[in-house]
Amino acid sequence: MAVYTEVPDNELRAFIEQYEIGEVMACKGIAEGVENSNYLLHTTQGSYILTLYEKRVKPEDLPFFLGLMQHLAAKGLNCPTPLNGKDGTALRELCGRPAAICSFLEGMWPRRPNERHCQLLGAALADLHVKGRDFAMQRPNNLSLSGWQELAAKTAARADEVEAGLAKLIADEVRYLETHWPQGLEIGTIHADLFPDNVFFLGDKLSGLIDFYFACTDFLAYDLAVCINAWCFEGDGSFNVTKAQKMARGYDSHRKIPEAEIAALPILARGSALRFLLTRLYDWLNHPPGAFVQPKDPLEYRRKLSFHRQCKSASAYGI
Amino acid sequence: MAVYTEVPDNELRAFIEQYEIGEVMACKGIAEGVENSNYLLHTTQGSYILTLYEKRVKPEDLPFFLGLMQHLAAKGLNCPTPLNGKDGTALRELCGRPAAICSFLEGMWPRRPNERHCQLLGAALADLHVKGRDFAMQRPNNLSLSGWQELAAKTAARADEVEAGLAKLIADEVRYLETHWPQGLEIGTIHADLFPDNVFFLGDKLSGLIDFYFACTDFLAYDLAVCINAWCFEGDGSFNVTKAQKMARGYDSHRKIPEAEIAALPILARGSALRFLLTRLYDWLNHPPGAFVQPKDPLEYRRKLSFHRQCKSASAYGI
Repeated sequence: MAVYTEVPDNELRAFIEQYEIGEVMACKGIAEGVENSNYLLHTTQGSYILTLYEKRVKPEDLPFFLGLMQHLAAKGLNCPTPLNGKDGTALRELCGRPAAICSFLEGMWPRRPNERHCQLLGAALADLHVKGRDFAMQRPNNLSLSGWQELAAKTAARADEVEAGLAKLIADEVRYLETHWPQGLEIGTIHADLFPDNVFFLGDKLSGLIDFYFACTDFLAYDLAVCINAWCFEGDGSFNVTKAQKMARGYDSHRKIPEAEIAALPILARGSALRFLLTRLYDWLNHPPGAFVQPKDPLEYRRKLSFHRQCKSASAYGI
Repeated sequence: MAVYTEVPDNELRAFIEQYEIGEVMACKGIAEGVENSNYLLHTTQGSYILTLYEKRVKPEDLPFFLGLMQHLAAKGLNCPTPLNGKDGTALRELCGRPAAICSFLEGMWPRRPNERHCQLLGAALADLHVKGRDFAMQRPNNLSLSGWQELAAKTAARADEVEAGLAKLIADEVRYLETHWPQGLEIGTIHADLFPDNVFFLGDKLSGLIDFYFACTDFLAYDLAVCINAWCFEGDGSFNVTKAQKMARGYDSHRKIPEAEIAALPILARGSALRFLLTRLYDWLNHPPGAFVQPKDPLEYRRKLSFHRQCKSASAYGI
């Protein structure tokens, strides 16, 4: 459920006049996107998404995010495309917040992802990696090793409120990953948050990817590990090897996964599971009572982490 | 902020197939409407609103609400029009809830209503009253006298937690209204909740009215009293006589306000202020901690009520 900034009519009109997209016909706050305020905009020329960036997105990162979406869209990847205003820039301000208008992407995210979705997702992920290769900007992944150390420290005192032994498990895992984190894998632009609600489908086709606000520069294979965590576990916690196989097969169709990346998958999956465990745990311990956003269960990712800890190689994923 | 039922893709698709509106292209939960879950639907044929009726709307009232919107739309009033499916009915079920699809109404509600908005609103309200005259169904206003007695009883024990003396003020007011409530005014179909967020404008024009889920059969002039409360007070609590005058003038242009209704306005405005004071107070005292919906301030309506108590006649409103 989105944070929700009220935009007064006159400010909205003045904002829209900075673009060549006709006149506003309707503007509805939509209940998607936890990080930002999103509005579905109807103008006399079509549908658009207006986004106001709320406090969790750092303004200095926005040129990277918007530039990436424009780069990928220009290369033919289906994603929301930030529109340049009459002044040639995409990023401006509305109601005291950074704001941008993007093209509207038709499609719906799959509430119950199946093998077919996983295969298409794999292909789209590889496509993103290939098309992102020559994107000139870089952004470090602040939710990798150093970020985990920081979040582990911030949650250590209270982690056991959520589950006995959780603080120690996290500390052990951070230490293990510090010494075993892979080196030398291909680095590029990754999405880093490609959960099912960020992937749209129309009928039998993947219609596009959204929400690039965690995108950064890191191992390409780490992105695959994020998707394995986000797409291949069932509701009961079991791991669906077929889904992972299909995902890898889809990926391979656009970018052949190098052997070194396959070998690194279990450790990358541990890192990715730890990342979501830590951010969820932090939100769980720190969400204000009565907040709109219902925090997600951190223990879902503790269970996924436990699964990856006993995987000796990517063959445990069917890959 | 809306309650939000997740609709799985296959259920949505099966639901849409019961209509002749093409195929679903997008479906976004929108952050409007406190009572129900609303989705903005894009299909290959256009835009629609899909509504799932949550527990605050009684299913047995839905034929009245949907029938009224169809009646008014057929007479040329701009409002969401419930679509009949291939089976000829508008009301069906989705995710275990009553559900309907309505036409999408372009426009935006005024965040800062001005005199012009008030005049147009007055005209649209009278138009609704005239066009609703031959609507065959009836629904008693359960938020009139008997409803106030009930809510006063339910909130009496804890009202003073909100403001000292509030319980007594409410009890006194209910007693006063019981003996002074008008009789013999024209009864018809009223909207009963025509706040600014239920009235859309496009540029200089009123583009339509939405949210008929409090509509009922009661004094037409009571609806005007609701609008006086909802539109003519400024943020600082002061009453804007010019707005009320414009509203009445707009109303007069479609239905001349009879003298008896003008004379009754102060008491109707007291009743309407009490109605919103009581429902807000009840919600304030009973909202679950951590709920999505931020309860509205009941005391805003205690202050409005106090204003109306010292109005001797409608001339205090400039009418």
